[in-house]
Amino acid sequence: MTVQSPSSPLRLGIAGLGTVGIGVIRMLRENAELITARAGRPLVVTAVAARDRTRDRGVDLSGLNWHDDAAALATDPDVDVVVELIGGAEGKARELVTAALGQGRPVISANKALIALHGEELAGLSEAHGASLLFEAAVAGGIPAIKTVREGLAADRLLRVGGILNGTCNYILTTMRETGRDFDDVLTEAQNLGYAEADPSTDIDGHDAAHKLTILASLAFGCPVPYSAVQVEGIRNVGAADLAFARDLGYRLKLLGTARRTEAGVEVRVGPCLVPNRAPIAQVDGVFNAVIAEGAFVGQIMLEGRGAGAGPTATAVCADLIDLARGVQVPVWGVKSGNLGSVIHCLPPEKHEGAFYLRLNVEDRAGVLADITAIFRDNGVSLRSMIQTPVDSASGQKTVPLVLMTHETLEGAMQNAVRHIAELPVVHGHLNLLRVEEG
Amino acid sequence: MTVQSPSSPLRLGIAGLGTVGIGVIRMLRENAELITARAGRPLVVTAVAARDRTRDRGVDLSGLNWHDDAAALATDPDVDVVVELIGGAEGKARELVTAALGQGRPVISANKALIALHGEELAGLSEAHGASLLFEAAVAGGIPAIKTVREGLAADRLLRVGGILNGTCNYILTTMRETGRDFDDVLTEAQNLGYAEADPSTDIDGHDAAHKLTILASLAFGCPVPYSAVQVEGIRNVGAADLAFARDLGYRLKLLGTARRTEAGVEVRVGPCLVPNRAPIAQVDGVFNAVIAEGAFVGQIMLEGRGAGAGPTATAVCADLIDLARGVQVPVWGVKSGNLGSVIHCLPPEKHEGAFYLRLNVEDRAGVLADITAIFRDNGVSLRSMIQTPVDSASGQKTVPLVLMTHETLEGAMQNAVRHIAELPVVHGHLNLLRVEEG
Repeated sequence: MTVQSPSSPLRLGIAGLGTVGIGVIRMLRENAELITARAGRPLVVTAVAARDRTRDRGVDLSGLNWHDDAAALATDPDVDVVVELIGGAEGKARELVTAALGQGRPVISANKALIALHGEELAGLSEAHGASLLFEAAVAGGIPAIKTVREGLAADRLLRVGGILNGTCNYILTTMRETGRDFDDVLTEAQNLGYAEADPSTDIDGHDAAHKLTILASLAFGCPVPYSAVQVEGIRNVGAADLAFARDLGYRLKLLGTARRTEAGVEVRVGPCLVPNRAPIAQVDGVFNAVIAEGAFVGQIMLEGRGAGAGPTATAVCADLIDLARGVQVPVWGVKSGNLGSVIHCLPPEKHEGAFYLRLNVEDRAGVLADITAIFRDNGVSLRSMIQTPVDSASGQKTVPLVLMTHETLEGAMQNAVRHIAELPVVHGHLNLLRVEEG
Repeated sequence: MTVQSPSSPLRLGIAGLGTVGIGVIRMLRENAELITARAGRPLVVTAVAARDRTRDRGVDLSGLNWHDDAAALATDPDVDVVVELIGGAEGKARELVTAALGQGRPVISANKALIALHGEELAGLSEAHGASLLFEAAVAGGIPAIKTVREGLAADRLLRVGGILNGTCNYILTTMRETGRDFDDVLTEAQNLGYAEADPSTDIDGHDAAHKLTILASLAFGCPVPYSAVQVEGIRNVGAADLAFARDLGYRLKLLGTARRTEAGVEVRVGPCLVPNRAPIAQVDGVFNAVIAEGAFVGQIMLEGRGAGAGPTATAVCADLIDLARGVQVPVWGVKSGNLGSVIHCLPPEKHEGAFYLRLNVEDRAGVLADITAIFRDNGVSLRSMIQTPVDSASGQKTVPLVLMTHETLEGAMQNAVRHIAELPVVHGHLNLLRVEEG
């Protein structure tokens, strides 16, 4: 390990010179005096890795060691700390982080997919070689979510962690609610505005939020949560009608990540949820993220801010760098591996508890409700409320939308009920099942 | 300094066995396994200090060293860390913390008044003797506000910090808004519910919020802010009429602490403010606290949660203890004394900028508005909006309430204008001047 004496500069090798990489370099330079004072020593970029040497990135990169192969930062003798901003769970990012930790070289990473999928292996390397692995920027951008869960709430037994973890989805759902427009239309607009990628799947299918939730849950429970145990649903099936019904019912629709500890085990899921208007998280709109943590002693706290962008993400990366320079050393999941139990019992989706919202289209004739409520009764699901829109006889429509909300139940029972309801001859088209969370 | 090898227990001496002291002991015992795993070593209470040995506090205190004089914890050979939960800026609390730091013994304190008034002196002792002084519990209870500002946002140049820092005031203002009742009435209820003290002055006159704001501002700007420089106003003068007008104007009324860096210097103040309904902080109701921080890179973040109570406060105290056990060492204000400049230029209230709300009672006759607007013009204050309630001729009332809102101006200019308006013969009774913050 090549970390030098505390007064000498901490020398950084930055892999990946996209928006975030350039943001980090800019922040380190613009706030150099302040960062040196807070870190107790200068933080100086000595090396970078990126493929295109010729592109003008708006910052002066002259005099730095330039590597075409990011993995070379793991052994560059002028580098004390590797900052991995490449992204992706495999390939160059994984190779670099593995090599650096294996050399006993500390790593700062903003890579949620890498930490979510390979966190356990990397935590092992970090411990074995005494090299810190910090990743504040991997979750919720500038919101210090990792630090809050790993340090601020370290003394409490956390019962729940999660929140609005994807700004793209929150922007789309907010705009759909405010304008009444359809998903596809708003997605296209978000892509034009740069809030959504050309291939939007990682965001809108819930994977990005699930990566972040996996990390938060692992920290909250002190043990790696397997990514494969996360139930993931995105927002493609949310219709303008769902947002309108949610409003009429006194709710808002959010893509929520939820990791909850129950007596039976741990539930970890991402999906579109109705949350009551009065819940603080219901008020978090647009591209903003919010992280909720709930503990036996602390009650519920919520952190809100920008979850992406060069400035917020650079703030998180540089905070990790200052911690490292200050000599802070905390195990990857807040405890040494295996200290709080090496296995966490994640419940399969059918064993998750909760309340549900179901929207379906039914023929407007006598007996339909009796058939549906009988199916709920037979599956042990208790109804809380119902909205049936009167048929507009002038429209010539043959079916009417029906919305049902349930009390707490098992998802397995709910899925059974939905399957039987879908088979009723009076039910037509797609049934939209969403969760209801108390916020 | 008697801190022992990392695997041995960290031995704690707790001064003050009120709600928080007992909460800390309870948390350390109930969560012992989890806390040991996260701290890397056991945290064990070995000594306590309190006056009454006979009172049943609901936890087993047998076998602990008992000191009638709290200052004895500074030299008790069985104590590694002093936890000061006595409260008050002077007397036993100050004596104990000074003595402990002077011995090189680390201190955890929940004492906002002590840190706000004597933080500079205590930071000097902490540095001189290499003894950490941590005080997460002094601000906003279970919300990790200190850690967020000192560590999570350490790389950013903070432009503003503050928020809703007193749960008693927020409860009173929320209840006044929801019920339309008067201040005195709601205060009495809050006292009966235990949300306000028998002597409520510290809370409702803004001192408690000002102590917390002083600490946040000192951390944000890396330099002690003198408590005497804080402009402090409480909520005694807020009337039911102000809450009603605020609602009609699209605002809510909150007691806000605000520390803002401008080109001219630093503004630090506590006072009742109108904040727009759409601002996240406007939604924080009841006894909840919220801390806002705004930086050039990170943008605005907000943290929300319970600002008081045994559980949240114990969570903060124990998080500091875990940090200490993990070997985390951070200077008191996040930088060594004098590193970011040893003096901060706090602006006097008349140089603070901002928008204002003014409520007054005027005779309902021609020319009144012309007189008032002429005074604003002469003082360079620009009006944004105005509400004049029509006279109810049946009521026999001679005056009508008039509410004016201004654009951004200097407080000095506004105070001048208000003084001249108060002298107009058509203006009667008290003029209520409140700030408008964008949230």
